[in-house]
Amino acid sequence: MKGMMMDRQLSIPAIIDLAAEVHAKTEIVSVATEGGIHRTTYKNIHKRVAQLAHGLRALGVKPGDRVATLAWNGYRHFELYYAISGIGAVCHTINPRLFPEQLVYIVNHAQDTALFFDLTFAPLVAALRPKLPQNITFVAMTGRETMPAQEGLDGLQCYEDLLTGQPDTITWPDLDENTAAALSYTSGTTGEPKGVLYSHRSQVIHAMTSVIGASRYFGMGKKILPVVPLFHVNAWALPYSAPLSGTSLIFPGAKLDGASLFNLMEAEKVDSSWGVPTVWLGLLHEMKQRGRKPEGLDYVIIGGSAAPQPMIEAFERDYGISVCHGWGMTEMSPIGTFGMLSPEMEDLPFDEKIALKVRQGRRLFMVDMKIVDENGKELPKDGVAFGELCVRGPSIASGYYNNETATAQALDPEGWFRTGDVAKITPDGFLQIVDRTKDLVKSGGEWISSIDLENAALGAPGVVNCAVLAMPHPRWGERPLLVVVPKPDAKPAKEDILAYLATRVATWQVPDDVLFVETIPLTATGKISKLELRKILKDYVLPTAA
Amino acid sequence: MKGMMMDRQLSIPAIIDLAAEVHAKTEIVSVATEGGIHRTTYKNIHKRVAQLAHGLRALGVKPGDRVATLAWNGYRHFELYYAISGIGAVCHTINPRLFPEQLVYIVNHAQDTALFFDLTFAPLVAALRPKLPQNITFVAMTGRETMPAQEGLDGLQCYEDLLTGQPDTITWPDLDENTAAALSYTSGTTGEPKGVLYSHRSQVIHAMTSVIGASRYFGMGKKILPVVPLFHVNAWALPYSAPLSGTSLIFPGAKLDGASLFNLMEAEKVDSSWGVPTVWLGLLHEMKQRGRKPEGLDYVIIGGSAAPQPMIEAFERDYGISVCHGWGMTEMSPIGTFGMLSPEMEDLPFDEKIALKVRQGRRLFMVDMKIVDENGKELPKDGVAFGELCVRGPSIASGYYNNETATAQALDPEGWFRTGDVAKITPDGFLQIVDRTKDLVKSGGEWISSIDLENAALGAPGVVNCAVLAMPHPRWGERPLLVVVPKPDAKPAKEDILAYLATRVATWQVPDDVLFVETIPLTATGKISKLELRKILKDYVLPTAA
Ligand SMILES: Nc1ncnc2c1ncn2[C@@H]1O[C@H](COP(=O)(O)O)[C@@H](O)[C@H]1O
Repeated sequence: MKGMMMDRQLSIPAIIDLAAEVHAKTEIVSVATEGGIHRTTYKNIHKRVAQLAHGLRALGVKPGDRVATLAWNGYRHFELYYAISGIGAVCHTINPRLFPEQLVYIVNHAQDTALFFDLTFAPLVAALRPKLPQNITFVAMTGRETMPAQEGLDGLQCYEDLLTGQPDTITWPDLDENTAAALSYTSGTTGEPKGVLYSHRSQVIHAMTSVIGASRYFGMGKKILPVVPLFHVNAWALPYSAPLSGTSLIFPGAKLDGASLFNLMEAEKVDSSWGVPTVWLGLLHEMKQRGRKPEGLDYVIIGGSAAPQPMIEAFERDYGISVCHGWGMTEMSPIGTFGMLSPEMEDLPFDEKIALKVRQGRRLFMVDMKIVDENGKELPKDGVAFGELCVRGPSIASGYYNNETATAQALDPEGWFRTGDVAKITPDGFLQIVDRTKDLVKSGGEWISSIDLENAALGAPGVVNCAVLAMPHPRWGERPLLVVVPKPDAKPAKEDILAYLATRVATWQVPDDVLFVETIPLTATGKISKLELRKILKDYVLPTAA
Repeated sequence: MKGMMMDRQLSIPAIIDLAAEVHAKTEIVSVATEGGIHRTTYKNIHKRVAQLAHGLRALGVKPGDRVATLAWNGYRHFELYYAISGIGAVCHTINPRLFPEQLVYIVNHAQDTALFFDLTFAPLVAALRPKLPQNITFVAMTGRETMPAQEGLDGLQCYEDLLTGQPDTITWPDLDENTAAALSYTSGTTGEPKGVLYSHRSQVIHAMTSVIGASRYFGMGKKILPVVPLFHVNAWALPYSAPLSGTSLIFPGAKLDGASLFNLMEAEKVDSSWGVPTVWLGLLHEMKQRGRKPEGLDYVIIGGSAAPQPMIEAFERDYGISVCHGWGMTEMSPIGTFGMLSPEMEDLPFDEKIALKVRQGRRLFMVDMKIVDENGKELPKDGVAFGELCVRGPSIASGYYNNETATAQALDPEGWFRTGDVAKITPDGFLQIVDRTKDLVKSGGEWISSIDLENAALGAPGVVNCAVLAMPHPRWGERPLLVVVPKPDAKPAKEDILAYLATRVATWQVPDDVLFVETIPLTATGKISKLELRKILKDYVLPTAA
């Protein structure tokens, strides 16, 4: 028997409609790419979202079209989130930190019909232009006066011109909630980025469950500074969860160094800030210099890589800033768990509290988790057993955009998504990531594919076999180490190999060190056993990490 | 284009699963019908919910079956909410305050297969027994030792026996989220109660949106005392929203007088309490006696009828308790609006703040509102224009259970639900109920049908025509006034008419006064014009209200 309730669909623009009405005066503050601080409110930005939506249609954007963005955290990027999805198109946020070849791959794979970019990225876009789809439209996210005089970008459009003269109200189309709304590419172990295609339903449910699971940081009067980029899995849903809950957003633009963040947080009286471990090093350094925290900063939310214990302790003990450690992934929209403690846990002695916070937190509503052994058999959630973590829920990917191979491998036979993380789950529901089955290095919140690096290194003169391992690093979380078996008679030099790689991968992906070994341990099936290799190198420390 | 996200369905038992894991130690405290205080946690109640679900199946309850409850606010009633819906059956909460004939009508109309009742209601159930469906199963919500020795209830089952020996874990069936989950009857203008059939989807979305819209009252460490009954539209969703958000629930059982509430609130350190205006009179009286508020009580949430300004002022000025005024209806699951103020409003001078709080608040996420004139034309939200309020959303009824006539009239041509309330909406989104088109009297949070009363009164000797009007009343919100046109030669006495009615309607439905008039104003189409009548009687004050 079915209920007798209206068949109204969850929709992303409903979020900004609500904010404009109920949280009208709540501010969105942005460090503008043109310089200076830009201030607006949910009420006013709603008008611009409507104008932009009309402008996109005028530009020829149709339902289902992919519209790409290459931009920092700022109000125009936020507007694009709503206007693109609102008219039934797909907001495809691109990570500008990727290697140019990956950018080219992604835009071509997504078949983006338009690309919106911040001024900073004009040279990059012009350089990529020849390899991008022919009839893609380029839009510079700025006003007429500040349009870049960039060669190689014929027909470049101006963002503000798109809005001018358009009506500032809109009746959104009634979309099925399963309509695609956004697209994010994630680096896979095989090297080719894979697209996760979110729906209105998945985004809205995720926004609601994350407001509920992280309720302490959301609500009227609260202010969030997302350091996590809008180009990185929806900035952990903040562009949705903040307006939904009446929370103010403070967008930092391009400058993410400790001093800039400190000043912005203090000027805007930010309550909480969200980002990957690496960015907090800069802030902690700045706080140490000044001997204090930004006034009003009560919470730091850390995710994207494991938050190191000393970092959590520094925030909590030295500055009285409460840390919330979360875990998630692009395929999870992205939040899976949050580290908010229960009241009885908040009262624990400091060390016990920190021990809980080092774990990755507890699941959001509608995120099911199980851990399984190599045969897929479920393991107990006893805090002892560990195995691959698999997840299930309405905001979790069921496959990858236009990628049958990756889609076929994504789910286990019971329909759970295989995260590639190895974890324990304690009886009180805390997740503890202990290892990774997927072959990637996470540096400063960004993925580096070990396999890509290995393939490139195999081409270097004098290399017969090699393996890339993720090594702990105090600043970046992890950095790649290249282990090389030289050709019998060759004596390749470390510098030569690194110089060779620098011409083939992005600078920041070049390994921090090269180790030469006689053999690399193999598994039964003849694959490199990273497990064994890691054991052998367990005392190794990167020179950059010493 | 569709997104590529998992097709996982929203489900009610997912809420209690989450609470058991993430909010394991959070308490549910109940004033037990057997006497004394009962304490449990989400973790432990989850086990009992699983046992009850198995027990229900053992009793023969099948997916789609309606299972009725006639019970106070307590842990067993809460368990029924989850266990019944969890196995795909429909939790049909019945309001024991209804007139026995309505109770009989409802149970027969719903075709309930089982009826669970609190000890208090054993005599009532026994009295109704002969008129209820033949093979309905009765279950007394108590343990073996306290089973009632009630005549006339053959085969009476014991709640605790159902649980004994059952496994305390369960794998819930995967249900389509549109599966019917709960049923509430609401009194209609035509007198026959109409059933609103909620789905898993509507309940879960409503729980999420209400936690977000009333975020100040929810969350880990918070404690809510629902005075609003579990038999009245899901106690405003609290049985769902509290566990979802890790909020503790304090169930008051049958005693809702001021002193009992005061003592319970203070003993359990309740933060917020939710209920209709009438119950707060008792609490305010008690607070006045003692010269203080229950320690820790910071918020009172008032809805179901208009919260009178003096009541709001008394809470706020005399006791520093912040009032939140909300509005909703059975057909809306039930919350439509909430009175949480934005930060800039909280800073307003007292009188301006109260003026905002007298209004009914602002809409929840996914609740669309419009006001229309008699021709269905939409009116501006300018705080001046008023018209019938229509609403739309995934937790709003599209019709009534097994009632084609009422279903046909529920929605306007554009698919919006017609609330029967007349309202203004201010530019900043506040709803202000100004009148009602539906012909009902709302007394102490319960409906009295004017039409039913009129039909009954027309049978009284000496009455040729009559009309019932809702009149303001300080204690009950509204009370019925009967306006009578006597037969030409008759001189019926007020007392006789009231005595006559007392044999035909519930005692609390008998009008507070009878007025004799020569004629009753009619509309152009010959119907009684209540609008005109109200104008004529605008200075009339009920003797009970003086
Ligand atoms: N805060 C309020 N102010 C005025 N009327 C209210 C309020 N809350 C509920 N109502 C009335 O109660 C009706 C819903 O009743 P029910 O379905 O029994 O919950 C609404 O349509 C209104 O007429």
